[in-house]
Amino acid sequence: MRMVDLIAKKRDGHELSKQEINFIIEGYTSKGIPDYQMSAFSMAIFFQGMTKNERVYLTDAMVKSGDVIDLSEIDGIKVDKHSTGGVGDTTTLVLAPLVAAVGVPVAKMSGRGLGHTGGTIDKLESVPGFHVELNNEEFVRLVNENKIAVIGQSANLTPADKNLYGLRDVTATVDSIPLIASSIMSKKIAAGADAIVLDVKTGDGAFMKNLDDASDLAEAMVDIGNGVGRKTMAIISDMSQPLGFAIGNSLEVKEAIDTLVGKGPADLHELCLTLGSYMVTLAGKANDINEARKMLEDVMESGKALEVFKTFLSSQGGDASVIDDPTQLPTAKYKVEVLAKRAGYISKITASQIGTAAMLLGAGRKTKESTIDLAVGLVLKKKIGDHVDNNESLVTIHSNSKDVDEVIRLIQDAYSIVDEQVETPALIYKEVVK
Amino acid sequence: MRMVDLIAKKRDGHELSKQEINFIIEGYTSKGIPDYQMSAFSMAIFFQGMTKNERVYLTDAMVKSGDVIDLSEIDGIKVDKHSTGGVGDTTTLVLAPLVAAVGVPVAKMSGRGLGHTGGTIDKLESVPGFHVELNNEEFVRLVNENKIAVIGQSANLTPADKNLYGLRDVTATVDSIPLIASSIMSKKIAAGADAIVLDVKTGDGAFMKNLDDASDLAEAMVDIGNGVGRKTMAIISDMSQPLGFAIGNSLEVKEAIDTLVGKGPADLHELCLTLGSYMVTLAGKANDINEARKMLEDVMESGKALEVFKTFLSSQGGDASVIDDPTQLPTAKYKVEVLAKRAGYISKITASQIGTAAMLLGAGRKTKESTIDLAVGLVLKKKIGDHVDNNESLVTIHSNSKDVDEVIRLIQDAYSIVDEQVETPALIYKEVVK
Repeated sequence: MRMVDLIAKKRDGHELSKQEINFIIEGYTSKGIPDYQMSAFSMAIFFQGMTKNERVYLTDAMVKSGDVIDLSEIDGIKVDKHSTGGVGDTTTLVLAPLVAAVGVPVAKMSGRGLGHTGGTIDKLESVPGFHVELNNEEFVRLVNENKIAVIGQSANLTPADKNLYGLRDVTATVDSIPLIASSIMSKKIAAGADAIVLDVKTGDGAFMKNLDDASDLAEAMVDIGNGVGRKTMAIISDMSQPLGFAIGNSLEVKEAIDTLVGKGPADLHELCLTLGSYMVTLAGKANDINEARKMLEDVMESGKALEVFKTFLSSQGGDASVIDDPTQLPTAKYKVEVLAKRAGYISKITASQIGTAAMLLGAGRKTKESTIDLAVGLVLKKKIGDHVDNNESLVTIHSNSKDVDEVIRLIQDAYSIVDEQVETPALIYKEVVK
Repeated sequence: MRMVDLIAKKRDGHELSKQEINFIIEGYTSKGIPDYQMSAFSMAIFFQGMTKNERVYLTDAMVKSGDVIDLSEIDGIKVDKHSTGGVGDTTTLVLAPLVAAVGVPVAKMSGRGLGHTGGTIDKLESVPGFHVELNNEEFVRLVNENKIAVIGQSANLTPADKNLYGLRDVTATVDSIPLIASSIMSKKIAAGADAIVLDVKTGDGAFMKNLDDASDLAEAMVDIGNGVGRKTMAIISDMSQPLGFAIGNSLEVKEAIDTLVGKGPADLHELCLTLGSYMVTLAGKANDINEARKMLEDVMESGKALEVFKTFLSSQGGDASVIDDPTQLPTAKYKVEVLAKRAGYISKITASQIGTAAMLLGAGRKTKESTIDLAVGLVLKKKIGDHVDNNESLVTIHSNSKDVDEVIRLIQDAYSIVDEQVETPALIYKEVVK
């Protein structure tokens, strides 16, 4: 078998076999197939796509390129959740303790990553003492005891995907649904999930700008998951404006605490209940979505969800007293209100620009080397459809620097205000269940 | 400017500017742009093509990536000829002395290359003593004196094309008309031609298997040539069967001698007169094609063309006496006739298979390291449309080995014989003059 022939086969629109795709990924991982062949192959995929079978083979080959986490010692069906990312997405912080509280084992492997705010681990580190340096034994023991634990990402998880992603990033081959889908799914599958719930975001603040692309990606990922024997379903949710109110690490922890007791922002609350219901159902803890939803509402109301969050934090070294007194979380020196320049209804909030504003404050990493300021961020006072008076606050900036002119400018630019009343956008556009 | 953005621009079907293409080729030549970006870019070109302007910019940038030969000290308009290659193509051996004999300066830079037989230099080396180790001064002096000289290829001619071609070869991006056209044209232009006559072959024995592709390539090359200010025209000629009778190095020299005195195979004779007429006209030595053709026929008949060939060979160290006594050329030990298995009319000769047979005998190089046997090859006795009796000879094998079973099998396979009479295929399908 020669790589050049396989590139030509894909270029000409023919389907590659499992054996051929294994040859490519094994060769690429062992450096037998050079980057210049892999990038030409990726560009051919950009133009020709991949069949359902090819996507499954590719994902499977990438999973096998590195370590595969064995969660078999954890009791029950391990359900993982993945969101394709957006601005102010606090769902993981809420969902993990929420579904654990109804008995779904949450064995979460998480990362730090780049973006508007930190990753889940960064956010959790707002809680003094919290750490993810667990060995596998501790991790398994904690999940079995508490139904929830979080560890950092293994160094050798899906190295083929890691290398390929780096290559795609510099060869204009990122925007390919089959490549995006297999990249995401390979990581989830290697991390040991039995079932996967996907939250595909669409809108200005998401990677998928329109519903069609988001649907294609969701379908592709669900097909891959089911194709490799992991029950997978997806929802497509709105990211035309930031989710919830808080964007920033400790600010989002605070918002998660509110949401865990049923007092979070309406959109975040609803999204967590929807995703959570699917997770609980896939885990076999409820007979249907409605039953699952009721269970989740109960543990919010009874305070059990928050208790599980506390136990989880203290089990991993965190000072859980901050949950009862969130003023102990890292707090920024300055609060500055961003005022509306006119009265009217909010018609648009450009989420990407809000994200950039948060990053400018120091809430996220621009490069791998950046340090995150856990205290800073934004809290939205107004969302799409809300009425605002002239000079009323749109957003509260939490900053450790007095120099926030650029941040104010970005936020004022991000908000569009009109005279006519505006409808609240839909939160969940579609569910993909097969 | 970032290469990744330029790849994306091409991928999305937008036209690149002269500045952008220069950035790419300069970057690639200086190793600032890595192979993995260039191969993704080439694959994007495979799918999106290139506009007329882009092709001119690319060719020009590749020309400037290395040495550009200065032929200004040679009197007259230097016309070069290029053939896209085929089986048994002896035209260069004939054309160079033929047009030189009517005063067209032929300053030929030639290579060895891979293929069914050797390159022009290999073939000429059948003449004992002949060499191409000339310095530039000698080269210019010889062309001015004799109107003809041949040197080997400069090491640093179009390095960008050389690197890119090597990369395309292993990344399934060879079959792209804009890339093929600019590769060929950049070499011709860097070699210093004022005007260029192209012979684009089509048919089973050619790189372009059908007339549409051949036309596209011819159009593309003519546009590039004219676009960079070199008068360029093309013909599309038949390669559905080998050209002439001889395939092999000294065998083709012998055939060239016959053709130079007007006694060559009909197709080779006609093709040389057609291409030669265009060369003479582009060089300004005749007012039109008809006048040019008459001049060429005259120098064939008068023996002047053959005289020029002899002078050329002896000026570069060759023993020109072999021209009068071709038995002194390298001769194979064995002659074996390949017999027809039935009577009938020849309907097809798969040229590529005939080429492979010649290569098996040792007439061509399989890899750069192969040595060529100048004596061996094939002489076709029958061509398409000819009648053959059962057990009559189709081809004479000239071999230095007795073991020619595989060669016989290939040749017998290559010939199709039918009962009905068959028309001789057209030799020249089209002329592309703009």
